[in-house]
Amino acid sequence: MRHLMSPLDLSVEELDKLLTLANDIEKNPKKYAHACDGKKLATLFYEPSTRTRLSFETAMLNLGGSVIGFSSADSSSAAKGESVSDTIRVISCFADICAMRHPKEGAPLVASLKSSIPVINAGDGGHQHPTQTLADLLTIRSLKGRLSNLKIGLCGDLKFGRTVHSLINALIRYPNVEFVLISPKELRVPEYIREDVLVANNIPFTEVERLEDAIPDLDILYMTRVQKERFFNEEDYIRMKDFYILDKEKMALAKDDMLVLHPLPRVNEISVEVDDDPRAVYFKQVQYGVYVRMALILTLLGIEVQ
Amino acid sequence: MRHLMSPLDLSVEELDKLLTLANDIEKNPKKYAHACDGKKLATLFYEPSTRTRLSFETAMLNLGGSVIGFSSADSSSAAKGESVSDTIRVISCFADICAMRHPKEGAPLVASLKSSIPVINAGDGGHQHPTQTLADLLTIRSLKGRLSNLKIGLCGDLKFGRTVHSLINALIRYPNVEFVLISPKELRVPEYIREDVLVANNIPFTEVERLEDAIPDLDILYMTRVQKERFFNEEDYIRMKDFYILDKEKMALAKDDMLVLHPLPRVNEISVEVDDDPRAVYFKQVQYGVYVRMALILTLLGIEVQ
Amino acid sequence: MRHLMSPLDLSVEELDKLLTLANDIEKNPKKYAHACDGKKLATLFYEPSTRTRLSFETAMLNLGGSVIGFSSADSSSAAKGESVSDTIRVISCFADICAMRHPKEGAPLVASLKSSIPVINAGDGGHQHPTQTLADLLTIRSLKGRLSNLKIGLCGDLKFGRTVHSLINALIRYPNVEFVLISPKELRVPEYIREDVLVANNIPFTEVERLEDAIPDLDILYMTRVQKERFFNEEDYIRMKDFYILDKEKMALAKDDMLVLHPLPRVNEISVEVDDDPRAVYFKQVQYGVYVRMALILTLLGIEVQ
Repeated sequence: MRHLMSPLDLSVEELDKLLTLANDIEKNPKKYAHACDGKKLATLFYEPSTRTRLSFETAMLNLGGSVIGFSSADSSSAAKGESVSDTIRVISCFADICAMRHPKEGAPLVASLKSSIPVINAGDGGHQHPTQTLADLLTIRSLKGRLSNLKIGLCGDLKFGRTVHSLINALIRYPNVEFVLISPKELRVPEYIREDVLVANNIPFTEVERLEDAIPDLDILYMTRVQKERFFNEEDYIRMKDFYILDKEKMALAKDDMLVLHPLPRVNEISVEVDDDPRAVYFKQVQYGVYVRMALILTLLGIEVQ
Repeated sequence: MRHLMSPLDLSVEELDKLLTLANDIEKNPKKYAHACDGKKLATLFYEPSTRTRLSFETAMLNLGGSVIGFSSADSSSAAKGESVSDTIRVISCFADICAMRHPKEGAPLVASLKSSIPVINAGDGGHQHPTQTLADLLTIRSLKGRLSNLKIGLCGDLKFGRTVHSLINALIRYPNVEFVLISPKELRVPEYIREDVLVANNIPFTEVERLEDAIPDLDILYMTRVQKERFFNEEDYIRMKDFYILDKEKMALAKDDMLVLHPLPRVNEISVEVDDDPRAVYFKQVQYGVYVRMALILTLLGIEVQ
Repeated sequence: MRHLMSPLDLSVEELDKLLTLANDIEKNPKKYAHACDGKKLATLFYEPSTRTRLSFETAMLNLGGSVIGFSSADSSSAAKGESVSDTIRVISCFADICAMRHPKEGAPLVASLKSSIPVINAGDGGHQHPTQTLADLLTIRSLKGRLSNLKIGLCGDLKFGRTVHSLINALIRYPNVEFVLISPKELRVPEYIREDVLVANNIPFTEVERLEDAIPDLDILYMTRVQKERFFNEEDYIRMKDFYILDKEKMALAKDDMLVLHPLPRVNEISVEVDDDPRAVYFKQVQYGVYVRMALILTLLGIEVQ
């Protein structure tokens, strides 16, 4: 029985196999259209997240399976005081595999310990969101052809952004990867990423405050949202807010083959005028998210399609 | 790529073809049972509407397809500030066709501009609800055999009732259609319907206050709800409320082949004693709503069944 | 047209046939995997209940059918004032069978009177929850081999617990069944169960306050939750609360083949240390709940699988 709690649960080899499977699914969707006939996915979303939930549901439906579940805690037994451990044992009687989003860190892990079906962490508080990272990796590998030899800019709220931390952790396993960390001082990556991950592994990185300064050299620009409330004072916010909005002008400074990713939802940190730029791949990233979740479901269920 | 924003998006010929297809579906449901195998409908309901949502879902399931979506804005990404334009681009990665209900007028239109899948307006504020109108037209054509040569009574809240406005707009395209507008003064059809639609097109119509006065001549009686809060004063409400309740007594005044339609939900404006009258077809109308949505999905997806 | 409002709607013979069908489904799930192809179940949950709803949905999906519905009243037409009678007539146009949970006693019965599809009561207020009772009976019959000759302990809140009342009503139809009613005085079974059901039918029963005193002789122990708020005073609660918590110590006093059932969700009335005891069958009970609902759907739809 395998679960997915963190992207690091998969070795580099396993991940490689998973991404290759996702690309085969992309190319031959019909081949997989009945791979999960008669199987059921449970989407247990204790906290709403339409995009992630619908991506999982789409993945299972594309494989011929079906879906049960709930989209918020109000309509779950949690309201009656049931523990996550009990819920997963009940769900194990209903479904073949489960995707769980929970506001509490570690809840999917607790569930996986008592589960008799594979549990996928679909986001647990500020902690992990591994299938987003898998989608990011698939997008980069598919469109760049590699996960090594890359200069990656991470821009925005690098302190609280769990997708950024996950992506750093996942990418340092590949050779010759370099990071440019673009954020206001208040929102720099936390100590446990800078020291324990980057420094400890001898990964080259720089920290800058202005996106314009960083963008010309990047192979990948990974944007995230900077919320006004995160700034310590109004003055700083006014001084810096434009640094983190990606527009045509900034795109003009970038390489011709730089890719722009974003975990979505986007608010205003990428101007809509950038959407039609062929380097803007954040909607393709959504599509890759479906393929990688299809590959993940097949892998965790141990289903091989010939 | 075609969308459906208003019933008038379809020409009279296209509408005729659509209704004919719906009747064929009614007669040969099995022929269409796998027409949408492997296809997905997204139901994006930013505002709850069980009947409309379930009608769409039933339509897609009857065609062999499957459904993803959400049933209220709380559980959507809108809560995180995502625009409708972004949401539809994301949904385009998941589904093959989409039905959107939104409290804001024009939201489905905005979505359709950025969508790479057909978007069906499933109701946008007080503006349009085109599939209700298609259901109304199919009901009338199926049970009366025609959409021309009809005297149609529209009763109740004609000011705010969008289904009434849509129906008028749709029916004036057929020859020899006459309207009897039955409502309290405060709830008469707005200027932009009376002048710009009826008068401008030389459509015969009369406005009356009492349903009893109008009912004997009608071929069709389209009932809608009159909410107490809509009246300007209590006195008027007390004087008139019974005018707009359809009961056995009033039905006795009507022709033997007059049909009673209602977009539902009904509160008390049609007495339940009328339900068993063969002329009461508002539940059949629900069934026709499924057939016409099936026909619409097939048409917008460009699927032809031999 | 048959509905299921109460477990007693089924005669002993019909129930026997239903449970036998459920066991056949358990043994040969593939045989039934397409029995409901093209059929639709509507889950109309006017009050949230994830476990019951998902059990019904799982049952229908396991039979090859599909599901539409809603999981709380907010997203239903009830909010617009539609009656249950109207709702079921609308749903009859969409689905082939319906499971309804409603906070008001009798609502599913009202619905069934106007329905043209079978209606299953999935819980109506404190009144009935027949499919829970069917799951209880299937669990006992499958694991004990009989529904007669049993000494059954019912423990906890016997006053408000509808599953307990339903189970008593269902079991007294079998020969040589004896009950041990274990509860604080404030939460003893109501008069209409003690006098009108047990005494009136000459069913042997005893009432005790301490689970430890009762457990050694039992064949079945049916646990339910005792909520603190139900006690009349704090003193009583402190004195008695441990009486009703099933732990390893109390299990040591029980027979080797006693079964522990619980309708779930469990809060703390069964210590988790008991979960691994082979006599603890409350999660198996969930699985039997799916089988019995599959059998029920087939039976009410009149579908026979060869």
